[in-house]
Parts: sequence; C-alpha cells; structure tokens
Amino acid sequence: MSTDLMPNRYIPGEADLPGRESELIARRDEVLGASYRLQYRRPVHFVRGEGMWLYDPDGRAYLDFYNNVPSLGHCHPEVTAAMAEQAARISANTRYLEPKLVDYAERLVDTFPNELDRVVFTCTGSESNDLALRIARFASGNEGVIVSNYAYHGTSAATAAVSPNLGDAVKLSPFVRMVQLPGPAGVPESQAAEFFEAQIRSAITDLNRRGIGVAALLIDSIFSSDGVWVDPPGFIAGGVAAVREAGGLVIADEVQPGFGRTGEHMWGFERHGIVPDLATLGKPMGNGFPIGAVVGRRAPMDQFGATSRYSNTFAGNTVGIATADAVLTILQRDQIPEKALAMSQRLRAGLEKLAMLPYGISGIRNAGLFFGIDLGLDGTTPASRRSMALNVVNAMRDDGVLVSTTGANEDTLKVRPPLVCQAEHVDQFLAAMERALIKIAG
Amino acid sequence: MSTDLMPNRYIPGEADLPGRESELIARRDEVLGASYRLQYRRPVHFVRGEGMWLYDPDGRAYLDFYNNVPSLGHCHPEVTAAMAEQAARISANTRYLEPKLVDYAERLVDTFPNELDRVVFTCTGSESNDLALRIARFASGNEGVIVSNYAYHGTSAATAAVSPNLGDAVKLSPFVRMVQLPGPAGVPESQAAEFFEAQIRSAITDLNRRGIGVAALLIDSIFSSDGVWVDPPGFIAGGVAAVREAGGLVIADEVQPGFGRTGEHMWGFERHGIVPDLATLGKPMGNGFPIGAVVGRRAPMDQFGATSRYSNTFAGNTVGIATADAVLTILQRDQIPEKALAMSQRLRAGLEKLAMLPYGISGIRNAGLFFGIDLGLDGTTPASRRSMALNVVNAMRDDGVLVSTTGANEDTLKVRPPLVCQAEHVDQFLAAMERALIKIAG
Repeated sequence: MSTDLMPNRYIPGEADLPGRESELIARRDEVLGASYRLQYRRPVHFVRGEGMWLYDPDGRAYLDFYNNVPSLGHCHPEVTAAMAEQAARISANTRYLEPKLVDYAERLVDTFPNELDRVVFTCTGSESNDLALRIARFASGNEGVIVSNYAYHGTSAATAAVSPNLGDAVKLSPFVRMVQLPGPAGVPESQAAEFFEAQIRSAITDLNRRGIGVAALLIDSIFSSDGVWVDPPGFIAGGVAAVREAGGLVIADEVQPGFGRTGEHMWGFERHGIVPDLATLGKPMGNGFPIGAVVGRRAPMDQFGATSRYSNTFAGNTVGIATADAVLTILQRDQIPEKALAMSQRLRAGLEKLAMLPYGISGIRNAGLFFGIDLGLDGTTPASRRSMALNVVNAMRDDGVLVSTTGANEDTLKVRPPLVCQAEHVDQFLAAMERALIKIAG
Repeated sequence: MSTDLMPNRYIPGEADLPGRESELIARRDEVLGASYRLQYRRPVHFVRGEGMWLYDPDGRAYLDFYNNVPSLGHCHPEVTAAMAEQAARISANTRYLEPKLVDYAERLVDTFPNELDRVVFTCTGSESNDLALRIARFASGNEGVIVSNYAYHGTSAATAAVSPNLGDAVKLSPFVRMVQLPGPAGVPESQAAEFFEAQIRSAITDLNRRGIGVAALLIDSIFSSDGVWVDPPGFIAGGVAAVREAGGLVIADEVQPGFGRTGEHMWGFERHGIVPDLATLGKPMGNGFPIGAVVGRRAPMDQFGATSRYSNTFAGNTVGIATADAVLTILQRDQIPEKALAMSQRLRAGLEKLAMLPYGISGIRNAGLFFGIDLGLDGTTPASRRSMALNVVNAMRDDGVLVSTTGANEDTLKVRPPLVCQAEHVDQFLAAMERALIKIAG
C-alpha cells in the first residue's frame, strides 16, 4: 500500500452523495490544493458542536470519539469566553511585557518534572517539533534523528523528513534512522525493553559510523501512528539512556499524549518513567486555538536561545495564552485526567467483552483515552483486515459515531474521544461498535 | 555586528525600570527560553488596544506605527465578533465539509491574478514559506534557493536556513545563495534591473555547476529586512524570468507586503508587474488570529498534493476562516488599501519636509504604508548611525510612539502602521518624529 494515501477518505464516485454535497466538493476540489483529503466515504459536514457532539445541517447528532484537539469538548463555553474576552481587550506579542504570558508559562512548567523549567511558545505541534529539532541539533552538534518505523511528527520540511508515516512521496532526511517497535515486531513484552534498546544502539552505531552522530531520539510515547503501541510502560527507558550516552537529546512528542490524554499522568513520557530533555506540545493545548510549545531543560534551551533569535509572530500572543490558560485551569480544576482514566477503564472493559465475541477484534491497546483496536478475523490477509477496518469506520460514521484508522496496515481503529466523555457516551460508543461489527463481520 | 542580536531590545541594567516591571522581567527570564527578546530599552506593557492605540497600565496611550499584524487596527470589533461567534458555534477541521472554507478560499483566490487559483491554509507565515519551499523543491526536482542578502523568511528549520538576517549562529543551508540588491549596493535605479538579473544568473550558474539546481527564488517584494528597498518598481522582473528559465519557481513572500500594505495593490508582487508561481501569506490575514496560506498555480500545487499529504491540524479550521473572512470583507468594503495609499502619500510628504531639515534623515523609501527611513548625519560611521537610529526609536517610545529599526546596519527606521491610520495619526507621528530627531540629532 502506498501510505501517502490516507485510507479513510472520500474517493470521488465511491458513494452516492446528495447534490448539495457533490456540488460543494466540486467547488472545494477546484480551489483547494490537491494535498487536502476528506474523511469517510461519505464526508461529514457539521454546523454546530457541543461537548461530545457534532451536529450536521439536518440536525443529526454525531458522537465524537475521534477528535483529540477539543479535549474539553467542542466549543467549551469557558474557553471560548476567555478567548473572546481577551481578543476584544488586547492581543500583545511576546516582545512586550505581559504578566499573563509569564503567569501561564509558570503554571505550564509547574506541571512538568523539575528538570524541565523553560518554555518557548509556538502555534502548532509541527512548529514545536521543528523547533525542538533545531534546539537538539544546535545543542548536540549532531544531525541524526531516530524515530519509530511509522512515526509522524509534523508537516514542516524538517519534521516531514523524519515522518516515515507520510509515505514514499515525501522524502526522508538522509540523517533519520527508523527503529522497529517491539509490539508490531511480535516481540513479547518481557523482551520489549531489551529489543528496543538494541534497535536504538544499532541506529546510533550507524549514525556514528557515517559521522552524522545522534542529535535526538524523537518519540510519541504512545506511538499513535505506529498503531498505539503503549506497553509495557517503561520499555523505552534503555533506548533513552543509550541516546543520552551518545550525546543526543530525548524529545518527547506530547502533541497527542499530552495534557492528560493518558489519564494517569499529565504527560505521556511519565508513563514510561523517563524525563526527556525537550517536550513538544500542540493539539489540545488551546482546545482548538492554534497554540503549541516546547518545554525543556535549561541547558539546551539557553544554549540555543543565547545566540539564535526565535521570533514567532503569533506564538504566545495574549489571546492564545488566555485561551490555553482557561484550558489548563479547567483540566486541573475539574480533574479531567482522573475522570478520563475512569472512562478509559470502562471503555476497555466493554471492548474486552466485545472481543470475546467472534466479531474480529484481535487486539486492544490503550493509554488512558487513546485506544488502538486491531480488527481482522482469524487467518485473513492484511488487505482484508484493512478493508474490514475501513468498513467498520464507515459503518460507524453512518450510524453517527466518529472514529478512524491507524497503524502500518491501517487495520487498527484509532479511538480518542474528548477527555470529557462520560459513562453514557462510552456505552453509546460500545453499542455502536457492536452494531458495526455485526454488520461487517457478523 | 553580530546580527543575531536584535538591536532594538531591552538589555538588563541599561535603563532604570520601576520595581513592578523589573520583577516581571526577572520572572519572565526565569521561565521563558533565552530565545525571547523584549523590545525597547524600557520595555512596554499594554493592557488595552483600540484601533491605532495601545494603552499601558497607567492609562497612557501609545500610537502604534509599527505593528503590521493588526492591519485593521487593534481589536477590530467586527473581526473579534466574527471569531467569537464562530468559536462558540463550531470549529471544524478541513477533513470535514465546510462551505465557509470553500467560500473564503474562492474569495481569497479571486484577489490574485487568474494564474494563481489554488490555496492551502497554514497557521503562520513561517509555515507558508516552509510549505512553499517543499512544493518548489518537489515540483522543480531541484534543491537550490535564492534569497536577498539580508532576507528573513521564517522560524522553521527550512526557512531559518534561508534567512541570512538571523545572523551567524543560525546555520545557512548549503543550498541557499544570497544575491545583492541594487539599492544597498549603490547601483543607480537606471541599472537596477540589469544588476539584479546578473546577480540571479550568477547564483543560478553556481547552483547548476554544483548539481544543486534552482528550486526557487524566494523574495519579499519590499525587501523589508534588507532595509525596505522597493524601487524602481519592476526591477526584479529579469531575475524572475531567469529563475523560470532555469526550471525554478518564483515564490512571492507576501507575509509583509500582502493584504494591501502597499496601497496600490492587494499583493506586493503586483507592484513589480510579475506573477509568481506561489505566494505566501501570513501576518495580517486574520488581524492577529494565527492563519496563513500558500496561494499558487495549479501545476506545482497539484503535482505536490497528488502524492504528498499535507495535514495541518489547526490550519483552515472554521474559526480561523471566519476571522480571515471578516478581515477580507472589511479590507474590500472599507477600501482600506486605497485609504492607506492616501495616508502613505501624506506621510511621505511630511517626511520629505523633515528631511530638508538638518536632523539626519538621509533616505526615505516606501511602498504604501511600509516605510524605511535612513538615519545618520553626514560623514558619520555605521556604528554611530545605528546608535542614532536606536536613540530615535527609544526617544519616540518614551514619547508614546512605536517604531523599530531594520536593514543590514539597523540604521533604518521601520515604520508600518496599521492600515487604518488617518491624517491625524500621520500628523501626530510626524510631530513625534521631529521631536525625537531634535532631541537626538538637533
């Protein structure tokens, strides 16, 4: 499969669409760059969002179990009010003094281990990873980057070049090395740490032999685009130590696992018991407002910043800061991660019950409310498993529930609801999933 | 001078500051990355913005002749209302059908020459230039990039590597070539086009001899970071043609000149009578909301997009689109560029009068409301001219007017007020400038 083609997408002519939608798609294709993709065989269109729900023009409600940007739910009234209030008052940039900027920076850094005590703001997760790579290369004096086999770290030239997930058309950097993960390689959990460390050491040896050296290990601690390979907790620790020994920095890509997604911790790396040199933030930081950050250790960030000007026009402006501040306040005040953990346990228990039925659930992996659910009936081919996953995703979409696929073979359901989901939503999701499985595989 | 040090900045200990501000700066330095800089010897702090004015905590008003992001003025009520309304309703991403996205894309593309009929949205000007470079390299099959001697095109790894303005600490790409501009090289206007073309051809020859080839000429048509070298209109045309002949694309960096800044045209490249292959947008597009875009010709954008997925989580979301749509509506409805042109003529006339007095104005260059004003008394050294410019900027700041410096020697005042400035603001600015010049050079 050419991995550049997002499998869960609209393909012209594949489904009959109402005239209103066909016409809009034709106009869209005429004016937007060809790099855009629409999700689902029959694309969705929403005119209103509220909490866990999205509503189409006919008033039909869709349960959102996919969007991890609005972690506090769609259109959270306190967040949108904070944004609107600040935008009407002033939007100062970071070259002006602004107590709110400093207050939020302090609050954010306080959620990290003591070693990580500095922050630089960005506008997107891609910008965060791009900046982290710049810092790591500057501080280490090396160029090499190690990522997982099917990693995705962003859309900028530098991050796309270390994102094998983007497929053959997007050239990889000559300085990137991919390592296998123990899970997809079929390595038992008892040998996972050893296997991962050996992979990393071999990549380091290769980078060193070529005089490239290792600048960074860049990892999303739940390995979402690889197919959500989260266990056993701690399996990355030996690899992390090996990179440090070799003079490289460890960058935790927290764009997806961060801000309580994993439930037990605010940050994904904590689940593995490691402390990175740099952590990169994005998606849920502003519940939809474009804001990201690099939080890191003082030494590399000072080394970079002392001579390198990093001036990002919009990043850290008061509107973004006020919005992100409201998000952090609500996350902490309403104990969102703790509640998400309880919901993840309910969801996992329900999925395990479903997996006992002969519907083709062949694996369940999760860290908090980020789930990978492998689909495929016994003895089927990769192509048929991928096709089954796509069929389930589209059946659920038609039934009013949003999920998508992930993994090297795209036969894993990617399920990551807003963190505010409650028992009733989990139960509705499980019922819809059972209906879809019966329809497709029953 | 090490150009990585932004000259117009706060230097600890240089000025006595009130305790409240010293304390905030100390906290700021403790938590923000060292890459941050504060403007002015005595940094400013604003708690409210309205139109052309910013207000400090003591209620003192500052006239903003510097910020080109809030082109429609600070906190424009229609823009902030459009943002707030949309944020409270829904923020859909571009993988869902959304008529507002398509409507705005069509409206935006309509402001360009017919050849440029496709758009991809981003969140920042840096992301726009980064993506444009990816497209140009993909479509041309080449790697080389040509920029002006003191260009600045962004903060991402790929754009910083083609931004000599960032100074020695930020490594340039081995594939970038810098060309001299006729103005700062002292070439008379009658020979400017020929000189520029010769520079470009020589860069192309060098790139070809090394097997790198030319992917793109990347230029800001008002050459703002070079010191605002805008004349004569059309001087870049021969160089543009040479790049096309060599198989490269022409990228107009419209982050600063775009959206009517030059008054006579919506886009800066129009002033030079050329049509680029790609145009990159940012700063004023959302009057402060983080949104940018690449607008381009169909062929390269389709070639790139057919196989390369470009998925930017926040870019093109409905809140950004609704905000940018309000900005475009106001720009067109209120004839902002035309009014800006009239104000630029008033400002230019006033500056020319000031230049006849012995206060050290040695050059005035502008395209619409983007001015470069060279400072320096006859026969003085570069260091003393730079110091004079800094002193004038800080005297004006103390007098309640915001401007800054630019150019290779940073002895050029950079003046770029919101486009909504009126005659009274222009006159206030001129009076403040005269007071500062008398104080510093009189």
